[in-house]
Amino acid sequence: MAGGSATSGRSVTSRALAVLDAFDSSAPRLSLSEIAERSGTPLSTTHRLLGELTEWGALARRADGRYEIGRKLWDLGLLAPVQLELRQVAAPFLLDVHTATRDTVHLAVREGRSALYVERISGRESVPVVSQVGSRLPLHATGVGKVLLAAAPDDVIEAVLRAPRRATRHTVVDPARLRRELGEVRRRGYARTAEEMSLGTLSVAVPVRAERGGDAVVVAALGVVAPSHRRDLTRLVPVLEVAARGIGRQLSQVRHFH
Amino acid sequence: MAGGSATSGRSVTSRALAVLDAFDSSAPRLSLSEIAERSGTPLSTTHRLLGELTEWGALARRADGRYEIGRKLWDLGLLAPVQLELRQVAAPFLLDVHTATRDTVHLAVREGRSALYVERISGRESVPVVSQVGSRLPLHATGVGKVLLAAAPDDVIEAVLRAPRRATRHTVVDPARLRRELGEVRRRGYARTAEEMSLGTLSVAVPVRAERGGDAVVVAALGVVAPSHRRDLTRLVPVLEVAARGIGRQLSQVRHFH
Repeated sequence: MAGGSATSGRSVTSRALAVLDAFDSSAPRLSLSEIAERSGTPLSTTHRLLGELTEWGALARRADGRYEIGRKLWDLGLLAPVQLELRQVAAPFLLDVHTATRDTVHLAVREGRSALYVERISGRESVPVVSQVGSRLPLHATGVGKVLLAAAPDDVIEAVLRAPRRATRHTVVDPARLRRELGEVRRRGYARTAEEMSLGTLSVAVPVRAERGGDAVVVAALGVVAPSHRRDLTRLVPVLEVAARGIGRQLSQVRHFH
Repeated sequence: MAGGSATSGRSVTSRALAVLDAFDSSAPRLSLSEIAERSGTPLSTTHRLLGELTEWGALARRADGRYEIGRKLWDLGLLAPVQLELRQVAAPFLLDVHTATRDTVHLAVREGRSALYVERISGRESVPVVSQVGSRLPLHATGVGKVLLAAAPDDVIEAVLRAPRRATRHTVVDPARLRRELGEVRRRGYARTAEEMSLGTLSVAVPVRAERGGDAVVVAALGVVAPSHRRDLTRLVPVLEVAARGIGRQLSQVRHFH
């Protein structure tokens, strides 16, 4: 191991990765000096690394001189399993649900203590929602989140119940009440929220189960968001269940090929 | 500039990028030795770089020991302009077209001599197609491709016409005939293909124009693919045009905010 070259190698690679880390959804376009500052890298080193990353296609330089994520990273990102093994399989089923309901349809997976939104179908007549593909939202305050939380290991549930944050005045943050809700989600097989994440919207969600090592495991949650005057949202549960079973069956098959 | 550290830095970063380059859509999951071979990197160096890239989240190690693209690169890829500035803006319009037609709907941009498929909406009742998001297909053999080629600079057109490859027995590869077709695309404002990319399918496509520096420039192509018994596909041209204008208008506005 080690020796001088391995050590300098480690730091060079991690510096290049730190440059990429400067970009996020709140800052998708950055100047040289912003990148240097956000990554904690000297300006001259940043300049050299930007040159290499741009040449390879990880970043691209815009007409205004700022940098943005390049097509090469977009390409590579499309190869991630969340895309190849989940999003592509699920997309036609989400479209079926949207066609039947005209509502915004979501697919989310649990990532730590967040619900990661993997796919979304939303027409221009659907209610506006905060989430988009790649968003992370709290597990306790959304329909898909409650479904994922209800299926999470105990330590995740305890960690979330210790500090549930309020997103609106309707967000359920009382640990005892949340715990009761998770029990209901498991028993009834779906979750329902009313204006907990954003005012004016309701959501309902069901688990997507797939076979993993002989067990049917919750691998994702499928949900719709609708305007809050729609009092009959639970009538969509069977629609979601049919789609979720379709996704789960395909996912169980897909896994066998790899 | 230069000096020993800059030189070794350059090669370390580029070796890390070469490791990522080993992955593509035909090989999204690779073993250590496959990565070493495909990237031309010694096994021990590959092992160390994989450790760093996995720790950062660019790659992830699967249960079977192979590596795949990690969620971090998926996240960063979502920040690329092709996603943020085009795909998100266009997706609801593609959904409108799909709702109206039930056919597979595509949005593509020109990347060199290929049509890069940026978004696709395809139901389970739509005709199966070869393209998916991230696919590159030849410009001369698809509906969206012909639209993009008709708007391309002369040197691109000449390069494509020099060596148009046959995808099916119906692919138009005669340069003079292709040149006439491109003239018709420009004059009529749409392109139409019959079984040129895959047997059993027809396609029709229109340009998406957006304002760039005061001019209305073709920035993308919007098309549908349908089974070849549908003889009336050109009746969809007005549907596509309405959606393409909606996309173009939003794109022209979006640009002003950046």
